[in-house]
Amino acid sequence: MSVSNNPSTYAVIMAGGGGTRLWPLSRQARPKQMLQLIGSRSLFQLACDRLQDFLPPGQIFVVTTADLAAILQPQVPEIPVDNYLLEPMPRGTASVVGLAAAVLQARCSNAIMCVLTADHYIADVPRFQSVMQTALAAADQGWLVTLGIPPTYPATGYGYIQRSEQLPGIGEDPVHRIQRFKEKPDIETAQVMYRSGEYDWNSGMFFWRVDRILAEFARWMPDLSAILARLTVSWGHPDFQEALQSLWPTIQPQTIDYGIMERAEKTAVVAAQGIGWNDVGSWESLFEALPGDDNGNIILSATCHLEIETRGTLIYSADPERLVVTLGLENMIVVDTPQALLVCPRHDAQKVRQVITVLKQNGLDRYL
Amino acid sequence: MSVSNNPSTYAVIMAGGGGTRLWPLSRQARPKQMLQLIGSRSLFQLACDRLQDFLPPGQIFVVTTADLAAILQPQVPEIPVDNYLLEPMPRGTASVVGLAAAVLQARCSNAIMCVLTADHYIADVPRFQSVMQTALAAADQGWLVTLGIPPTYPATGYGYIQRSEQLPGIGEDPVHRIQRFKEKPDIETAQVMYRSGEYDWNSGMFFWRVDRILAEFARWMPDLSAILARLTVSWGHPDFQEALQSLWPTIQPQTIDYGIMERAEKTAVVAAQGIGWNDVGSWESLFEALPGDDNGNIILSATCHLEIETRGTLIYSADPERLVVTLGLENMIVVDTPQALLVCPRHDAQKVRQVITVLKQNGLDRYL
Repeated sequence: MSVSNNPSTYAVIMAGGGGTRLWPLSRQARPKQMLQLIGSRSLFQLACDRLQDFLPPGQIFVVTTADLAAILQPQVPEIPVDNYLLEPMPRGTASVVGLAAAVLQARCSNAIMCVLTADHYIADVPRFQSVMQTALAAADQGWLVTLGIPPTYPATGYGYIQRSEQLPGIGEDPVHRIQRFKEKPDIETAQVMYRSGEYDWNSGMFFWRVDRILAEFARWMPDLSAILARLTVSWGHPDFQEALQSLWPTIQPQTIDYGIMERAEKTAVVAAQGIGWNDVGSWESLFEALPGDDNGNIILSATCHLEIETRGTLIYSADPERLVVTLGLENMIVVDTPQALLVCPRHDAQKVRQVITVLKQNGLDRYL
Repeated sequence: MSVSNNPSTYAVIMAGGGGTRLWPLSRQARPKQMLQLIGSRSLFQLACDRLQDFLPPGQIFVVTTADLAAILQPQVPEIPVDNYLLEPMPRGTASVVGLAAAVLQARCSNAIMCVLTADHYIADVPRFQSVMQTALAAADQGWLVTLGIPPTYPATGYGYIQRSEQLPGIGEDPVHRIQRFKEKPDIETAQVMYRSGEYDWNSGMFFWRVDRILAEFARWMPDLSAILARLTVSWGHPDFQEALQSLWPTIQPQTIDYGIMERAEKTAVVAAQGIGWNDVGSWESLFEALPGDDNGNIILSATCHLEIETRGTLIYSADPERLVVTLGLENMIVVDTPQALLVCPRHDAQKVRQVITVLKQNGLDRYL
């Protein structure tokens, strides 16, 4: 299950951006991809682990900010420092995908790239590699491939992809032409799509030839394309960073989905059946990704914990000397950090975004 | 409503003993009477406040340990240091009541004493003083008077007192001869007693003439009585502490209820109707003693707190810089101290004693 014999395949791990949905553990300056939430590995490390025996570290690129790179790079020292592409500021996924494509083309004119996420959890890595293999085969044939996640409930927090006819003979997993993309729906629409069985969630993971995606950039995002062309000229030269710093702020923020995928032709989806995908987008998601103890509790980190009549509860404490006692709790989240303590029922875990909103409204940015 | 014109009336506030039922806020070395739980006053301070305009500070004695006295005395500096009686070690309430009685008799042969608690809350102080007035009038007539609390539910955590006939013409509140004392009952017995309407809870507050109670000690607890007699001789002399240290360990631990009250004749009860008594014996009790905010929440201390969709919840944090966020909580207890964090539903608050048991069993005494 290795394509390491193909030196033109590259992974681009998107590891920029903040994330406060696991607040108070994840913070603006400490987004979830760098947190050691699952076992002793961070989500970023796990994203790199998933490429083991699949791609050599030299063919793995990371797009992130300078601040985050300083923390992430030592977590996976095998990936060369030169493979880090540093966003001067957030300009949407179109910009980082485009930058990576342009840089890869300068390095290898027939490169195929996998755009991968750093803040999701995937339980079954062999299955994931198998799905990637199929997606790369489709990409090799010129398709712009999105990894779809078979929905397990009518989620309103993800974009959806409607499948069209199946494309025969590409790989082990079924590949479908994409009928249409549908951005995050309301609940009624989500229920209709979920019941129809024709939709997958958009995972934000993509596979394509760099010549193909750059052609689409030229067609649909000519301004960005022009900037990328100018940057490509200086890639590998001392003035690259300077060019990046001066050109990046002029980019109009846009997502790759809206900027390219919803408009392009020859788009396909591989439904990543059975990979055990979890976006770790809330404490509840993390709870579902982790195995519980005999009482269905999940005790993260080295939390010193005494549980009495407690079930289905996730507990984290940053301080192993502090005793966390839960008594009579059922299906709760208790997250204890030096700056802040969160207590909420698991079914309210997604409302943490309300906390973020209220903190911002009240000038309590020091807790973000 | 003052008896301060009677220089032979004395209060003895029992402020010894530990208490971990408000764990983790109350600890072995920091029992609840010294905690500023209600407003900015500790329960001990409130116990002293209740005697304002009733007894001058010089007529208030405090029985406690040396360690606790060092903390309590500065809380109410009006009470002379000489009025502190220091238990060398716990020997039950009979010993401390007896010691106080003996010391008072040495000071004033016709003294009447009020034995008061330091770790309960009483909402209506004028009513309480009125009840005390009646109890003192009965005590003056030679009765051994217990303050009864009209029960509000079939509690199993308190002793009960069965009323016999009413004693006419003593004070403004009805005084009844005591039929019998009943120690903490099982739930079935509690329900029968509660429904009968013939019982009051035993508050642990007593009123009597010192000559009367010392006579009962002589009759029912002759060993203790002999020790008290020897101590009385040296009260006010330099060798008192030495005598106390050598004699105290020889006392057999016993409660005043079992040692004297259940056996003595001429015992009476004044039902303290409407005083708003609360034993603050659990987080739930404390919750009931305090006024809630618009959402029925109680935020203790200077807790920095953000509540979202939270109702009926008590929150304490020792660190005003730490942000405590409760989201979607209903009827919960969240107590955040530097050493330990407790989260439990209010209706499980009395199970904190299980926590104490488990901590002891597991050698985690540093958290007690």
